[in-house]
Amino acid sequence: MVHTLLLNKKVILASSSPRRKQIFKMLGLKVLHKPAEIDENIDIKNPSKHVMTLAAEKASQIAKVMDADCVVVGADTIVFYEKKILVKPDNRFQAADYLTHLSGKSHYVYTGISICHQRKCFTDYERTLVTFKTLTAQEICEYIETAEPDDKAGAYGIQGYGSQFIIKINGCYFNVMGFPVNKFYQLLQKVIT
Amino acid sequence: MVHTLLLNKKVILASSSPRRKQIFKMLGLKVLHKPAEIDENIDIKNPSKHVMTLAAEKASQIAKVMDADCVVVGADTIVFYEKKILVKPDNRFQAADYLTHLSGKSHYVYTGISICHQRKCFTDYERTLVTFKTLTAQEICEYIETAEPDDKAGAYGIQGYGSQFIIKINGCYFNVMGFPVNKFYQLLQKVIT
Repeated sequence: MVHTLLLNKKVILASSSPRRKQIFKMLGLKVLHKPAEIDENIDIKNPSKHVMTLAAEKASQIAKVMDADCVVVGADTIVFYEKKILVKPDNRFQAADYLTHLSGKSHYVYTGISICHQRKCFTDYERTLVTFKTLTAQEICEYIETAEPDDKAGAYGIQGYGSQFIIKINGCYFNVMGFPVNKFYQLLQKVIT
Repeated sequence: MVHTLLLNKKVILASSSPRRKQIFKMLGLKVLHKPAEIDENIDIKNPSKHVMTLAAEKASQIAKVMDADCVVVGADTIVFYEKKILVKPDNRFQAADYLTHLSGKSHYVYTGISICHQRKCFTDYERTLVTFKTLTAQEICEYIETAEPDDKAGAYGIQGYGSQFIIKINGCYFNVMGFPVNKFYQLLQKVIT
């Protein structure tokens, strides 16, 4: 299990996301938080390449300044709908626009994860299909008022008020939350040998 | 949204499940907890009928002794695998047996929900397909040692250490956690008119 593989290891999460912190806590892990500072405005239109590039940049930036025995984890999440990558909304008008597009449709969520250890980095990604109910204008307004969409890719959080809008998912739930747990466990087994 | 529909309503959750409490908190709801005391050993082999019967019994038992304007919510969750209903394991040997069966396979999780309000009860259910990775004997032992399987239907919790064993789900995540949020919202719209 993850906590056994990481026993006596110093684990660093190169992210400031409260959702990712919550997932690491759920896995029984004590981690250090050291958010990477990178330019997330990259011109990569392929969604899996986009998230893997950013996850790898985050992890490697922090790994460079840490002891080689540390396990540094980076991640990046986007929403992909009709060939467009949706990141965090700039403002509430854009959040309303995102939600209007996602309403009554299915979209993909991609998360890239990267683990650096002993000067080597391993990177992979996960993809989940998410189906939204049809949202009324009132629901969109009420949801934006909760402030939950502000800091979320695609302007929604599956683990909060947004949960009531999601009819079903196909794939990994934790990927939609921002960190694909089973994929992380698989990758970790390759890294810690 | 759920919190708007329930504004100024006294909401009672007829369950002691910490996962359900957590979901209600996530939806921004203040609820009273008043667990129903019913015999869960019923002889209904059909999984949807099984969970709907128990959810309705829980909700109606509490609704009977409360003011008619209260909104009383009952729920019941089971795991269904190879035509067998798996409830909470009796002991750790049974937990190991359940996990051995679920390993490397897909199973269904069913949750029944029932809402009583103004002396009327509405009941429905949700079903989600969950796919487990192949578990090693070591993983099963380590997982049982965490004590997480003890009080969970099917001997696992998707929202804890168990998350790392789940490759994918098809359907509602919160249903697997024990309370299908979107289904609850749909049912609530019928109840509160």
